[in-house]
Amino acid sequence: MTRTIVASATREIVIGFDQPFCVIGERINPTGRKKLAAEMIEGNFDTVIKDALEQVAAGATMLDVNAGVTAVNPNETEPPLLVKTLEIVQGLVDVPLSIDSSVTAAIEAGLKVAKGRPLVNSVTGEEEKLEAILPLVKKYDVPVVAISNDETGISMDPDVRFAVAKKIVERAMDHGIKPHDIVVDPLVMPIGALGDAGRQVFQLLYRLRHELKVNTTCGLSNISFGLPHRHGINAGFIPMVIGAGMTSAIMNPCRPQEMEAVRAANVLNGTDANCTNWIMTYRDHKPAEAGAATAAAPAPAAGGGRRGGRAARAGAGASRE
Amino acid sequence: MTRTIVASATREIVIGFDQPFCVIGERINPTGRKKLAAEMIEGNFDTVIKDALEQVAAGATMLDVNAGVTAVNPNETEPPLLVKTLEIVQGLVDVPLSIDSSVTAAIEAGLKVAKGRPLVNSVTGEEEKLEAILPLVKKYDVPVVAISNDETGISMDPDVRFAVAKKIVERAMDHGIKPHDIVVDPLVMPIGALGDAGRQVFQLLYRLRHELKVNTTCGLSNISFGLPHRHGINAGFIPMVIGAGMTSAIMNPCRPQEMEAVRAANVLNGTDANCTNWIMTYRDHKPAEAGAATAAAPAPAAGGGRRGGRAARAGAGASRE
Repeated sequence: MTRTIVASATREIVIGFDQPFCVIGERINPTGRKKLAAEMIEGNFDTVIKDALEQVAAGATMLDVNAGVTAVNPNETEPPLLVKTLEIVQGLVDVPLSIDSSVTAAIEAGLKVAKGRPLVNSVTGEEEKLEAILPLVKKYDVPVVAISNDETGISMDPDVRFAVAKKIVERAMDHGIKPHDIVVDPLVMPIGALGDAGRQVFQLLYRLRHELKVNTTCGLSNISFGLPHRHGINAGFIPMVIGAGMTSAIMNPCRPQEMEAVRAANVLNGTDANCTNWIMTYRDHKPAEAGAATAAAPAPAAGGGRRGGRAARAGAGASRE
Repeated sequence: MTRTIVASATREIVIGFDQPFCVIGERINPTGRKKLAAEMIEGNFDTVIKDALEQVAAGATMLDVNAGVTAVNPNETEPPLLVKTLEIVQGLVDVPLSIDSSVTAAIEAGLKVAKGRPLVNSVTGEEEKLEAILPLVKKYDVPVVAISNDETGISMDPDVRFAVAKKIVERAMDHGIKPHDIVVDPLVMPIGALGDAGRQVFQLLYRLRHELKVNTTCGLSNISFGLPHRHGINAGFIPMVIGAGMTSAIMNPCRPQEMEAVRAANVLNGTDANCTNWIMTYRDHKPAEAGAATAAAPAPAAGGGRRGGRAARAGAGASRE
């Protein structure tokens, strides 16, 4: 059984086929968040702190930490800022962290200060990336996210994406890195632009799990980019990728509808033993007003619902004959 | 490609792997609904009419019609009541119907009056059932739901359930019925009682689709029986069974959270071309108040969401190096 171990100073988490889905909180990332970027440049970490606490409170298993605030001279500016951000976050919460940067020097600087066993995010199939990142992954004995694109870009052919993932795993083995320390990102495309995006990923996940036997992750919300009511698409996508074999995702844990989908899929996938987490979370769930159905938790009562559906019918039917 | 054709007098529906998920509305069923049973016995069809209209308005693809109001002498009382109910429903809505009874005489009476090509619900692997129902299915040239239990009950071993389904398909072929007219119900057990219930069904669906190549259905809400916030479990289960190959379900279409899961899974499974149905349904969806996320439709604006997540990050990252 494939087990990817990540850890903070005090807490160890296993990513695996038989484990609850690993939710990697995506919020601490200034990409596309101008206000957060401006704050971080000024040395103001108020939003970082808020995002760290909120994501863990919402149920994040791990936190991704990215400090890519600027496209100007990132090789010099990003390493110290990522170090500072990691230090603040790991001083605040006890979940394992993902060191997220496209700047190799920032990843190495992050690895020097991160406690426990962080995840490196990421390497690709590009030669330059492979030769920059894999030695660090080996040196610090950490797992790494492997994104299945290379110099030629992102292939629309899932077989090519699988081949890129396989190449990364093989190259990692050349460096002495075990496949269980490679978490493959099959790359999720927006379904609004590419109608086949869902089925591509499901097929890839099947092969990644059964042929390469690796853990997997993705930038989950990409799937719904450009569509109305994105949370509804995301919440439908989560059970489908979990059913197809995905074991983690980089996503926003502060979204109740998405987290409800994660919790439900854990129940259905057999990784929430005795439905304990579901029952603890929703035992006081109050059904919404007629017609609506909220994805939030709260309040008293509910009960087991009105009937056992087919089972009740079949039972009644049998007794009637 | 397996195609099960059902039809009303004026509308044909295909159940198939490449089709939108077929939602069979479950509401017109007095089992466990004492008030409805009492009404129907009195010849009051107000609730039947309301349920028929509401389910179709909510998006049901077909309607299940059951008139099992009593355990007393059903062989005499149920056939005329089922006929009456079917006639009322097919005079009111134009979706195909499912004739649902455990009384063979009621099914035959229903087949005599139903217009188009109704679905018979159901046959099991029990010898007596097979020999009673299959000749009717052949005579009226209609499809039938095959429930994968037999005289020995419902096996907890998915391989046995698969074998029962296979036996029914083979016996049907002996009667001259094609496999594409058998819609197998792998039987969904409550996950609260049987932690393996989800994975059992996913495995069975895979084999039913790839080995027997049949369409499938289930009494969907059974999965959440006994748990709090059942709609959340149901809404997570729907994308998982669709991803695993299920092509229809007997369920309550008046539940927005469940129907949203169906619509999202159709998008992700590539059976909502260009996301047209999703966009039409949710283009005016108003995000819920902070923290909550409703599954209902309504109101103005929304937009494409805040950012492209990983894709944006990857893009920004590339431009930074």
